[in-house]
Amino acid sequence: MRLRTSTSETFGVEMIKVGIVGGTGYTGVELLRLLAMHPEVTVTQITSRAEAGRGVSELYGSLRGHFDLAFSEPDPQKLAECDLVFFATPNGTAMQMAPGLLEAGARVIDLAADFRLKDTALWEKWYGMPHACPDVLAQAVYGLPELNREQIRGARIVANPGCYPTAAALGFLPLVEQGLVGTGNLVADCKSGVSGAGRGASTSMLMGEVGESFKAYAAAGHRHMPEIHQTLSWVSDSAVGLTFVPHLVPMIRGIHATLYATLVDSTADLQGLFTQRYADEPFVDVLPAGSHPETRSVRGVNHCRIAVHRPQGGNVVVVLSVIDNLTKGAAGQAIQNMNLMFGLDERRGLDQVALLP
Amino acid sequence: MRLRTSTSETFGVEMIKVGIVGGTGYTGVELLRLLAMHPEVTVTQITSRAEAGRGVSELYGSLRGHFDLAFSEPDPQKLAECDLVFFATPNGTAMQMAPGLLEAGARVIDLAADFRLKDTALWEKWYGMPHACPDVLAQAVYGLPELNREQIRGARIVANPGCYPTAAALGFLPLVEQGLVGTGNLVADCKSGVSGAGRGASTSMLMGEVGESFKAYAAAGHRHMPEIHQTLSWVSDSAVGLTFVPHLVPMIRGIHATLYATLVDSTADLQGLFTQRYADEPFVDVLPAGSHPETRSVRGVNHCRIAVHRPQGGNVVVVLSVIDNLTKGAAGQAIQNMNLMFGLDERRGLDQVALLP
Amino acid sequence: MRLRTSTSETFGVEMIKVGIVGGTGYTGVELLRLLAMHPEVTVTQITSRAEAGRGVSELYGSLRGHFDLAFSEPDPQKLAECDLVFFATPNGTAMQMAPGLLEAGARVIDLAADFRLKDTALWEKWYGMPHACPDVLAQAVYGLPELNREQIRGARIVANPGCYPTAAALGFLPLVEQGLVGTGNLVADCKSGVSGAGRGASTSMLMGEVGESFKAYAAAGHRHMPEIHQTLSWVSDSAVGLTFVPHLVPMIRGIHATLYATLVDSTADLQGLFTQRYADEPFVDVLPAGSHPETRSVRGVNHCRIAVHRPQGGNVVVVLSVIDNLTKGAAGQAIQNMNLMFGLDERRGLDQVALLP
Amino acid sequence: MRLRTSTSETFGVEMIKVGIVGGTGYTGVELLRLLAMHPEVTVTQITSRAEAGRGVSELYGSLRGHFDLAFSEPDPQKLAECDLVFFATPNGTAMQMAPGLLEAGARVIDLAADFRLKDTALWEKWYGMPHACPDVLAQAVYGLPELNREQIRGARIVANPGCYPTAAALGFLPLVEQGLVGTGNLVADCKSGVSGAGRGASTSMLMGEVGESFKAYAAAGHRHMPEIHQTLSWVSDSAVGLTFVPHLVPMIRGIHATLYATLVDSTADLQGLFTQRYADEPFVDVLPAGSHPETRSVRGVNHCRIAVHRPQGGNVVVVLSVIDNLTKGAAGQAIQNMNLMFGLDERRGLDQVALLP
Repeated sequence: MRLRTSTSETFGVEMIKVGIVGGTGYTGVELLRLLAMHPEVTVTQITSRAEAGRGVSELYGSLRGHFDLAFSEPDPQKLAECDLVFFATPNGTAMQMAPGLLEAGARVIDLAADFRLKDTALWEKWYGMPHACPDVLAQAVYGLPELNREQIRGARIVANPGCYPTAAALGFLPLVEQGLVGTGNLVADCKSGVSGAGRGASTSMLMGEVGESFKAYAAAGHRHMPEIHQTLSWVSDSAVGLTFVPHLVPMIRGIHATLYATLVDSTADLQGLFTQRYADEPFVDVLPAGSHPETRSVRGVNHCRIAVHRPQGGNVVVVLSVIDNLTKGAAGQAIQNMNLMFGLDERRGLDQVALLP
Repeated sequence: MRLRTSTSETFGVEMIKVGIVGGTGYTGVELLRLLAMHPEVTVTQITSRAEAGRGVSELYGSLRGHFDLAFSEPDPQKLAECDLVFFATPNGTAMQMAPGLLEAGARVIDLAADFRLKDTALWEKWYGMPHACPDVLAQAVYGLPELNREQIRGARIVANPGCYPTAAALGFLPLVEQGLVGTGNLVADCKSGVSGAGRGASTSMLMGEVGESFKAYAAAGHRHMPEIHQTLSWVSDSAVGLTFVPHLVPMIRGIHATLYATLVDSTADLQGLFTQRYADEPFVDVLPAGSHPETRSVRGVNHCRIAVHRPQGGNVVVVLSVIDNLTKGAAGQAIQNMNLMFGLDERRGLDQVALLP
Repeated sequence: MRLRTSTSETFGVEMIKVGIVGGTGYTGVELLRLLAMHPEVTVTQITSRAEAGRGVSELYGSLRGHFDLAFSEPDPQKLAECDLVFFATPNGTAMQMAPGLLEAGARVIDLAADFRLKDTALWEKWYGMPHACPDVLAQAVYGLPELNREQIRGARIVANPGCYPTAAALGFLPLVEQGLVGTGNLVADCKSGVSGAGRGASTSMLMGEVGESFKAYAAAGHRHMPEIHQTLSWVSDSAVGLTFVPHLVPMIRGIHATLYATLVDSTADLQGLFTQRYADEPFVDVLPAGSHPETRSVRGVNHCRIAVHRPQGGNVVVVLSVIDNLTKGAAGQAIQNMNLMFGLDERRGLDQVALLP
Repeated sequence: MRLRTSTSETFGVEMIKVGIVGGTGYTGVELLRLLAMHPEVTVTQITSRAEAGRGVSELYGSLRGHFDLAFSEPDPQKLAECDLVFFATPNGTAMQMAPGLLEAGARVIDLAADFRLKDTALWEKWYGMPHACPDVLAQAVYGLPELNREQIRGARIVANPGCYPTAAALGFLPLVEQGLVGTGNLVADCKSGVSGAGRGASTSMLMGEVGESFKAYAAAGHRHMPEIHQTLSWVSDSAVGLTFVPHLVPMIRGIHATLYATLVDSTADLQGLFTQRYADEPFVDVLPAGSHPETRSVRGVNHCRIAVHRPQGGNVVVVLSVIDNLTKGAAGQAIQNMNLMFGLDERRGLDQVALLP
């Protein structure tokens, strides 16, 4: 097989030099998959202590022919040569390295949780460690473009949202922004494919354990709850009360959020509200009334598809919101944020069609 | 292979003669699977117009060696010779044949919906046809043993509950019976494996369509909503308002109900309440505090496993309830009801261990 | 959501006008998915009698935002306006319409089997009907680029190979071309995901039937056997004897061919042979010695990945060959053929990265 | 939930006291599942260093209500009080403890590989360690009842066969015993569900890695090859040459062996041969001519189902053989062996019906 000759090379365009820290997990390989199809990016470094020296396509056969790159030890000085560094690392890593990189002039997108909660004390409570750089946290922009597009354009560091928070926030936003629902008793019943748990060795995520079965987890409290709470509180006039229960679905990719709220204005045109709210959004697709989005309709793409229901015409509104947890829920949204930060068309490199069936 | 010589034959015991109408679907084969292991039952007839003349083990290779029985055309006179007739038919069939069978002295358990809703008008609205025998409907007992055990013992005809209603009712009952939650705004977010959709030829349930994907369906209204509503209304002092959204999980067996309610008494000992409510129930298992039941823990068995949570110690109670939709949600519960109707130990023939992994 | 603004529009390039006959199946949606990402193609028509009038993105939510096109009744005159017509129809349809289209100046690629077997009598035996146009069959080129690249470039009509035949032929070719194995007793043990069976309503392909299970089928004889046999006979000096057993895997996409042959020259450098045979092939990837290709490594892409083994250093050679049955096994290869027929770079529009995980 | 009151307790029967060493894996839980349903066995001990002190039903929710037993540290003296000790341990453990247990009067069934290969040197080559007790190996009986029933009845120690070897041997035996096929070039293309890889933490068996994908593994050589070779050599007059390639199927349970051999006598009545060979076997089911066994038809049961084909009436015979790798391929066969060793009906406790769907 000949190495791919880029069919989309753009003469005269200066490529964005990108580094990826912690590239062996599912978020890392998804970044590589998408960046391979991005016409204005060159991945110059990808780090992994465990796999240093090994070719990325040795680890991920799907990348054969697309990357001639090997994992390397993370080296702050070399990383600082990048225009942008993505962190696809466990929580707690990016906050150690980000200050130096920013100082050196690189920009940063953290796909982990280090910069997601603006309240340092709250962050420390839910993540169980002291925060290494509260000052950087203060300047980080929460990277949900549908909420913070303009701030993202100017950001030096972006906190890429969590997967559940992306699906839940996009479904709740139109209702809460307009004050149409009681915010004291919101319910987000969310379901995720197994890739959300990452690629670390474990017994609990073996196919023999999670295949052909379904369960809730972390019903007592999950770190994505305060994140969703924070987003909704930003746009709500009243206090937010949220119950969030995540579940594990025996499939690989996909998140489905089923959201419940009680209408305070029963005359609202919900379909019109959602359609209008997202009319100009390239990656949010409001389905026709009566629809039920399937996770497979966004498999591998950066879209969120949403339907809104009002069962039996009552006062409860049910929003169904689906994303691919690795794409709009992680790597795709990170690239969307990158496009904004570097002045590119937001959709650049993200115009694939979902893999169905 | 030699045909199985029963190792559990019970000399001197008179066997219950059982007929099954409509035995080609998943409920039918599950009845056969369980009845093959029941020491006091003989299946004397199984009917199917489409498969008349074909051996049951030709259709279901899993039954080879266990049944020397062929499908036959349904013949009311021959069925009337049975002690008990199970209907594993589409909605609308049992109500045509049940009156005659009852008159002839047979007893009936309908695994479809014909006798589930006591309000004829409500039934006709949700099922879209006139009811053929409102008088029989009036005498039918709703076959949820944990609620109606004594009436089932004396019943001539039992309406076997729906799969979602079984999982949801068992989870809500302790709370609603004790008036511990506001009943005006209950939420049942339920998830089912694909076998719940039956074995009929269709495009929408192909593995190519439902594998590796997750979606809600019937968010605007599902027939199991009024059934759950009816059960909860029976035990509630106040009006019941219920939102029920079913979802399709890419697995074959299992239902997971995630139930949300708001506590009116925040001092309640929820774990104690559930444990005590089901202390004597052979098939309801309340898990230790903090647990998350998996559907696989009840695969192929008649159990319901339940956990109760109070996220962040707030006023929302979350109940997690799992069953196998074909067993406790259909054929297993039907046999539990049969055991009660015929004076047997309720657990007779139902003491298998779930297939895990 | 705004309709996609093509980011890859190529000014000054004349777009190829493409029609698709029979676009509702999995091959049809895969063609649409790939053509949406092809910078030099416009899909002008897609036909379906059953779905005429319905938007393609109503049927396939994944296409929302990519196509503003509805299914139409097949109309030979309108189809003749296309530069190229793809047939994604059941066997027996393309041979009715192809002669007229060719005469009118359109070119044709048939993704069904109508033009795959050059021997009309053999075709009629395996497909159970008379062939409608043996003369067109005679001029059709078998569209395996790795074998017939030059003829495809000049072809008016191309028979796109079957999915199993593509995986098996690419695995056997280097060995048979060089006369390194005995051809009298070849074994192709092949496994396919369920999408190979299409999207037609059926009981046998329900997830409840094929999920969590594995089986062989058509062990007595499958139509792809004579097709593989024909390809190998073309390149073999000696008579070919082939045993082909297909199996059904509980997954959606992917074919894995495990091929067995006996070496006649035990000194051969098998790894070198395969590497050299496919050195210039853009879509055939020979893995390093000792590898085991996974079907997921080609999910959604047009690649075939191959590994060659010689267990215990004996005289049996085992070739492992994987493709995506809908891509290299159907729609992707059809587009590769289209690229060749229209003088484009063979890889045009086919440079995506496999979706892993 | 009330603890199960055994409905099958047999007064006056002395129960077999059973110990299980290494009970936390899939083979261990399958032993527990089946033994819970065995009327003449009491499990008195189950050991696990890692889980000592933890209740078995804490680890496996499916066992709640069936066992009131906790894991304990392995204690040779206590184990010696058992009538029978099952080893469900990694290779190399049973051979350390078996000599002492046998001396103390207990009997042993090893579900690992320590006593499977009679040739000590061959064992040491494939398992990469010295054998601890060649003398015990010499007296161990290979526990394939269909081959060695009488020796098993009198055995003190039984080597329970591997999963692939069980499926492959049962499929090849009739042909090889009768000398009907050339034994120099046998092919066993075998496919297994993921539970065959056990329950140890790993990356390679995560659902994110093995779901929705198919691959071969160990094509260069797998430990089950010499085991199958040994069995076939026992019954063959001529030298055996065997190619064995295992594959991983994205499902949990089940093995499918597809076996290829060349007939030396083309007049043989293959269907009759298989039917007659297994006519008296309680757990081997020869399907009607033209059948294709599904792995789900044996899910959770101790059966092997077999079909024999002769594609296009040629000289190649194809045998399709399915088992559940955890049941007939491990724990079920171990209990079948136990029944034989203790003079019980071979089918005792093994008369469940496969879980389908």
